[in-house]
Amino acid sequence: MSVVVRNGERADRGAVEALAHFGVATIHEAQGRTGLMAPYMRPIYPGALVAGSAVTVSVPPGDNWMIHVAVEQCQPGDILVVAPTSACDCGYFGDLLATSLKARGVVGLVIEAGVRDVRTLTEMKFPVWSRYISAQGTVKATLGDVNLPLVCAGALVNAGDLVVADDDGVCVVPRARLDAVIASARAREHKEASTRARLAAGELGLDVYDMREALAAKGLTYKDGKA
Amino acid sequence: MSVVVRNGERADRGAVEALAHFGVATIHEAQGRTGLMAPYMRPIYPGALVAGSAVTVSVPPGDNWMIHVAVEQCQPGDILVVAPTSACDCGYFGDLLATSLKARGVVGLVIEAGVRDVRTLTEMKFPVWSRYISAQGTVKATLGDVNLPLVCAGALVNAGDLVVADDDGVCVVPRARLDAVIASARAREHKEASTRARLAAGELGLDVYDMREALAAKGLTYKDGKA
Amino acid sequence: MSVVVRNGERADRGAVEALAHFGVATIHEAQGRTGLMAPYMRPIYPGALVAGSAVTVSVPPGDNWMIHVAVEQCQPGDILVVAPTSACDCGYFGDLLATSLKARGVVGLVIEAGVRDVRTLTEMKFPVWSRYISAQGTVKATLGDVNLPLVCAGALVNAGDLVVADDDGVCVVPRARLDAVIASARAREHKEASTRARLAAGELGLDVYDMREALAAKGLTYKDGKA
Amino acid sequence: MSVVVRNGERADRGAVEALAHFGVATIHEAQGRTGLMAPYMRPIYPGALVAGSAVTVSVPPGDNWMIHVAVEQCQPGDILVVAPTSACDCGYFGDLLATSLKARGVVGLVIEAGVRDVRTLTEMKFPVWSRYISAQGTVKATLGDVNLPLVCAGALVNAGDLVVADDDGVCVVPRARLDAVIASARAREHKEASTRARLAAGELGLDVYDMREALAAKGLTYKDGKA
Amino acid sequence: MSVVVRNGERADRGAVEALAHFGVATIHEAQGRTGLMAPYMRPIYPGALVAGSAVTVSVPPGDNWMIHVAVEQCQPGDILVVAPTSACDCGYFGDLLATSLKARGVVGLVIEAGVRDVRTLTEMKFPVWSRYISAQGTVKATLGDVNLPLVCAGALVNAGDLVVADDDGVCVVPRARLDAVIASARAREHKEASTRARLAAGELGLDVYDMREALAAKGLTYKDGKA
Amino acid sequence: MSVVVRNGERADRGAVEALAHFGVATIHEAQGRTGLMAPYMRPIYPGALVAGSAVTVSVPPGDNWMIHVAVEQCQPGDILVVAPTSACDCGYFGDLLATSLKARGVVGLVIEAGVRDVRTLTEMKFPVWSRYISAQGTVKATLGDVNLPLVCAGALVNAGDLVVADDDGVCVVPRARLDAVIASARAREHKEASTRARLAAGELGLDVYDMREALAAKGLTYKDGKA
Repeated sequence: MSVVVRNGERADRGAVEALAHFGVATIHEAQGRTGLMAPYMRPIYPGALVAGSAVTVSVPPGDNWMIHVAVEQCQPGDILVVAPTSACDCGYFGDLLATSLKARGVVGLVIEAGVRDVRTLTEMKFPVWSRYISAQGTVKATLGDVNLPLVCAGALVNAGDLVVADDDGVCVVPRARLDAVIASARAREHKEASTRARLAAGELGLDVYDMREALAAKGLTYKDGKA
Repeated sequence: MSVVVRNGERADRGAVEALAHFGVATIHEAQGRTGLMAPYMRPIYPGALVAGSAVTVSVPPGDNWMIHVAVEQCQPGDILVVAPTSACDCGYFGDLLATSLKARGVVGLVIEAGVRDVRTLTEMKFPVWSRYISAQGTVKATLGDVNLPLVCAGALVNAGDLVVADDDGVCVVPRARLDAVIASARAREHKEASTRARLAAGELGLDVYDMREALAAKGLTYKDGKA
Repeated sequence: MSVVVRNGERADRGAVEALAHFGVATIHEAQGRTGLMAPYMRPIYPGALVAGSAVTVSVPPGDNWMIHVAVEQCQPGDILVVAPTSACDCGYFGDLLATSLKARGVVGLVIEAGVRDVRTLTEMKFPVWSRYISAQGTVKATLGDVNLPLVCAGALVNAGDLVVADDDGVCVVPRARLDAVIASARAREHKEASTRARLAAGELGLDVYDMREALAAKGLTYKDGKA
Repeated sequence: MSVVVRNGERADRGAVEALAHFGVATIHEAQGRTGLMAPYMRPIYPGALVAGSAVTVSVPPGDNWMIHVAVEQCQPGDILVVAPTSACDCGYFGDLLATSLKARGVVGLVIEAGVRDVRTLTEMKFPVWSRYISAQGTVKATLGDVNLPLVCAGALVNAGDLVVADDDGVCVVPRARLDAVIASARAREHKEASTRARLAAGELGLDVYDMREALAAKGLTYKDGKA
Repeated sequence: MSVVVRNGERADRGAVEALAHFGVATIHEAQGRTGLMAPYMRPIYPGALVAGSAVTVSVPPGDNWMIHVAVEQCQPGDILVVAPTSACDCGYFGDLLATSLKARGVVGLVIEAGVRDVRTLTEMKFPVWSRYISAQGTVKATLGDVNLPLVCAGALVNAGDLVVADDDGVCVVPRARLDAVIASARAREHKEASTRARLAAGELGLDVYDMREALAAKGLTYKDGKA
Repeated sequence: MSVVVRNGERADRGAVEALAHFGVATIHEAQGRTGLMAPYMRPIYPGALVAGSAVTVSVPPGDNWMIHVAVEQCQPGDILVVAPTSACDCGYFGDLLATSLKARGVVGLVIEAGVRDVRTLTEMKFPVWSRYISAQGTVKATLGDVNLPLVCAGALVNAGDLVVADDDGVCVVPRARLDAVIASARAREHKEASTRARLAAGELGLDVYDMREALAAKGLTYKDGKA
C-alpha cells in the first residue's frame, strides 16, 4: 500500500531563508541538539549551505521509481529527502533528476544512499548530501511512499519539516518549532560574536566561561612537567 | 609461482579516447551495469577523467615489489590496476612511482589499497583512485603476478580490459566489448540530451518516461496532506 | 584523579620548522616507519602541512571540557592532540576554540573524534585532522587529563612529542629523536631527488634499484601474452 | 530540559505473548516490512525470543545515568530500549542493572551501544540485543529522557510500542497495530505451513508461487551449459 | 538480458567429499592461496563444514526472485552461491527456501548479503555463510542470472567450481584443479601431522622450520630485558 | 633494526591468577578505566577467561615470521599479544602455533589481525581474542620486534604487563599496578555483592546509589503519560 501525500503545509519562505543563514551547528544547538543526521552524510562538494521544506521519499533498495513520483510534489524552496528501506549504496540520482528538480525550484537533495554524475551536479551547483557516491544504476519496479514520516540517517523527518545542510552535515527542524529555533539561533549567534572577540584578544575560555571553580571542585590537579 | 605476462593485446587508442569522453555512469549503463568497482574507490582529487588499458598487478599485503616489475610492462595509454591478496591500507605508491609511470605514458592508477604523497600527485596531475590514503610504506620481499586476471574492489579485471575512472568511481570494460559499449554510450548520450532539454523546460519525468499508468497499475495512491 | 601537567619541555622551534619541510611520508620513513596514525585521520581541507609540539588531551566521550583546560597550557608552535577514552563522533571543537588556539599561536588540531564549523575553520586556515565531521555538540561535566601519554588513532603520543600532519595523514616523532629524524629525512630527500630525475628520464626502477637479480632468484617468470 | 514520562499505556499482556510466538521475520512481514532495526543489533547469546512494551531511554554518549532513572518506570513485561544521542560503544549496562530489571519483571534490553558482563548476563538468561560488547564503563553526569519517542538503530520507537527480538534482530510494532499484526502473522504462519510441506515434498517454488509465466514475460532465457 | 545456464558440469561426488575433509585453511594453502572470500563471510552457527558444486546466482539489491529460479537448477551435492549486484543487507533467504534446497540435496548457502530465520536454519542444520543476518524481506520484480560467472565477497566463482566452507570462511576451487588440490592438501596434512607432533613435544618452530640462520642474516638481534 | 628482548620480568603467578578471577569489566574499573582494547577484539569461542604476562610481537602486514621467533621467548603463564604495523586481516595463527604455545604453557593469544583453524583451536581450548577470522595465510620474509612496547587495538602494551581477557574483551594492567588493582577489584567485588542483593530484592538503584537529589538538582522533570 503505497501512498503519495500531496499539498502538505510548507513553512514561510522568509523564515526558511533566515534559517539557512545560521548553518547546521548553530541550528542544532538552537533546538536543543536534536534532529542531526549521522555524520556519514557528506556533501558532494564543499561550501554549500541550504535550507528547505522536506519532501520525503521512502525507496526500496536499488529502485528509484518513487523519486520520479516525488518530483511532481516538489515546490520552489523544497528539499528532497530520500531514505532506502534497507541500506543501499546504489546511485539513485544523477544529473537528469537534478535538472528536473532545478526546474521546479528545489534547493537540494539529502539521500541516505548513493548519487552519481557528481561532476555535473557540481558544475550545476545542485547540492547533494549523500552517504555514498556510486555510478550503480537503479530499477523502476517497486513502489514506496512520498511525504510519509521516515527515518533518514538516524533522524526522523516529517514532510514539511525544515532541513538545513552545510559542510557540517544535515539537521532537521520540525515546522512548528521554526520561529523558536530562529530566535534561539539569533541569540546564540549574538552571544558567540562577543565571546569570539574576547577569545581572539587572548582571553581564556576558562575565564570567559568561568570554569575554574567548577573544575577545582571536581578535583582537577595541576602539576609541573619539568624536573 | 609468480608470473609476468608480457606484450598482451591493447585496444585501439582512438577507441579508448572515445570511451573516456562518456564518463563512468554512462559507460556502466551502456554495458548493462556490469564491471563497476565498489564505491569505496575514490579519486585523490576531484575532476579527473581517464580511460586506459589495464595492466593488472596482484600484490601481497604491505609489499609493493611487483609494482616496480609492472612498470616495465606499461605502454602509453595504459592504466595500472593493483589489488592486494588480502585487505591492506598501506601506501603502496607515491610520487616516485608516479614519475616513472608518467615517463612511460601511463594515464593513471587504480589501487584497492593506499597511496601517499597525494599533494605531489595532485600537483603532477597524476590521477589515482584508491581505497585509502596512507603514508605507511611497504617492503619488497615477496612476489605476485602481473597481467593475470584479478578481482579489484569487487570487479574482475583482465589485462587489456579498458578501465574508465572519474568522480563517480571506476568501471571495467572487456576489450572485446569496447566498440559495442561506445556505440551504446553514444546512443544513450544522444537520448539523454533530448530528455534533459524537456526536463529543464519543466516537463515531468512521470510524463517524459510515461510512468503514470504503470504506477497506477501497481496501486499507487494519492491523498491530500491538508485538513 | 585528573591531572594537568604544566610547562613540559618543547623542542627547538627551528628544528620543528625543519621537520615540517619534509611532509609525513618522508618523516615516517626517516624514523623507521613508526608513529603513524591510522588512515581514517583526514584533513578537513587539502594542502595544509604543519608540525608542532604535542599538547595531549584525554577526553570522555561527548565531553570537551578538558579542551578548554588544555588551551591554557598551549604555547606558540604547539599542536593540540585529542583522543576520547572510547570511540566518539561528536563535534568536540569548532570556530570559537580555534579562535582561542590561534590567539595562542597553536598551529593545528589532531583529534580522533569529530569537529564542526569546518567551513569557518577552512576560511580561518586553521588546519584540523579528524576522524569525523559532525555538528553534534558536547557537554562539560567530566574531567580528563592534559599532557599525560595517550594513544591517538593507534599512535602513542607523549606531551612534547613532535606531530607532523599533511594530506597523507599524521605522524608522531619523539622529541629525543628529532635531530636524528631530520638528518635522516634530509638524506632521504637528497637521494630521492636524484632517483626522481632518473625515473623521469625513463630509467626503470628495476634498474635504478637493481632488482632484477633478486626477482629472478625468487623465481619470477616472464611469459608472452600474445598467441 | 529532561523529561521522564510516567505511567504510559501498555498493551494487553496476552497479546504481547501472542506476538512473541511468531518471531521477528514473521512480524516484520506481517506489518508491511516496517519497524526493523539495523542488522548490527545482535543478541549476546543465541536462541532468545522476547516481546515486551518499550520503555525508551535517550542517553548521552558514555553516560548511563538515565538507565537508572528508567528502571523505576519499568513494569513486568516491559523491554528497555536505549539509544545514545550520538554513536557510542561504551558498556552502558551490566549484571547489576540486569539484576534490577529482572526483579521488576523486565524481559530484556535493546541498546544501540555496548553492554558488558555478557557471561553473567548469559548465565542469568537476561537477553540483550546490542550494537557492541564492551567493558568500558560510563559516567553519571548528564540527563536524558525516558519514554519520549526516539530513533534506535534506524527505527522510530514510542513508549508503549511493542518490541520483538530474536536471532534475526529487533522489530518495533506500534501499539495501535498490535491486534492487526497478530492476525496477519497468524494468517502468514498458516499459509507458510502448507507451503513448507509442499516444498519439503520436492515441489518447486517456481510452481508453488506460480512464477514461470511472469519470469518468461520479463524475458528470462534458458540455455544449456554443456557443449 | 537475463540468462539461466542449465545442466552445467559437476565434479565427481567422491572428489568433492574428499575436499570437504580438509577444511578451508588447508584447501586455501593447497591451491596456492587463491579463491578465498573476504572474512566478513561468517557461518550462522559454528561447526559446519561443507563442500559442493557452485550454482551461482546474481541478484539485484533487495530482490530474491532469481534464487527461486536457481533452486530448479540445483542437484544433490550443490551449494548455492549468491551475490547482489550492489551491496545489500536484506534477508534474501529463510527457512522456506532452505526446505526447498534440502529437498533437492543442496548442502548449503553462501550469500554476500543477509539471511533470516537463523534459529530455524540452525535447527534444520542447513548451513549458511553470509555477510549479514537480517529479517528484512525482499521483492520479486527484477531478473538476474543463474550460473554465469560472478564475484562473491571478492572471489571469482564459476558455475561448477567447488566451494568449501567452514568456521574459517569460504574458499573456491576451480573444477579443473580439484584433483591437484586434493593431492596437495593430503601432502600438506601429512606433513603437518608430523610437525604437530614435534611441536607438541616441545620442539620450537625456529628449529623445526630451520629459521635461525635466515633470521640472523636479516639482522635479528637479541638483547636482555633485565638490568 | 629488529630486536628481541629476552628474559624480561614477569609478575608473580599467584597474583596473575588472582587477577583472572575478576574478569575484564571489574579489572578495567579497578584500575581507573584504563588499558581496555577496542571492542572489535572478540573471543573465537564464548566462556574463556584468562590472565597472563604479555609477550609482545610487532609484525608486518601479512607476515607471521616474528610469531615463530616469539614462541621461544614464552614461559608458562604468558599470553601472546600480536599487533600488525598496519591494519591486516590475514590469518597469522593456526593450530600448529597453538600446539607449540600450549607445549610452553602459554595461556592464550590476543591479536589485532586474523586467526584460522578456529574449530581446532576451540577443540584444543586454546583461547584467542582477535579482530578477524580468516584462512588467508602469511609469509615469512620480513622482521619485526618481540617484547618492545606496542599499541594493540588502541591499548599500549609493555612486555610483562598483565593481560586479562574474557567475553567482554581484553584489558592491560601495568605490572607495577598489579597488587593495587587486585586490591581495588576485591573491594569493588565485595561492594557489588551487597548491591546485587539489594537490587535483586527489588530496591531501586535510584535509592541504593542515592541519586534522586542530584537528578532533581540537574532539573529532571516527571510528567504523566496518560490523559
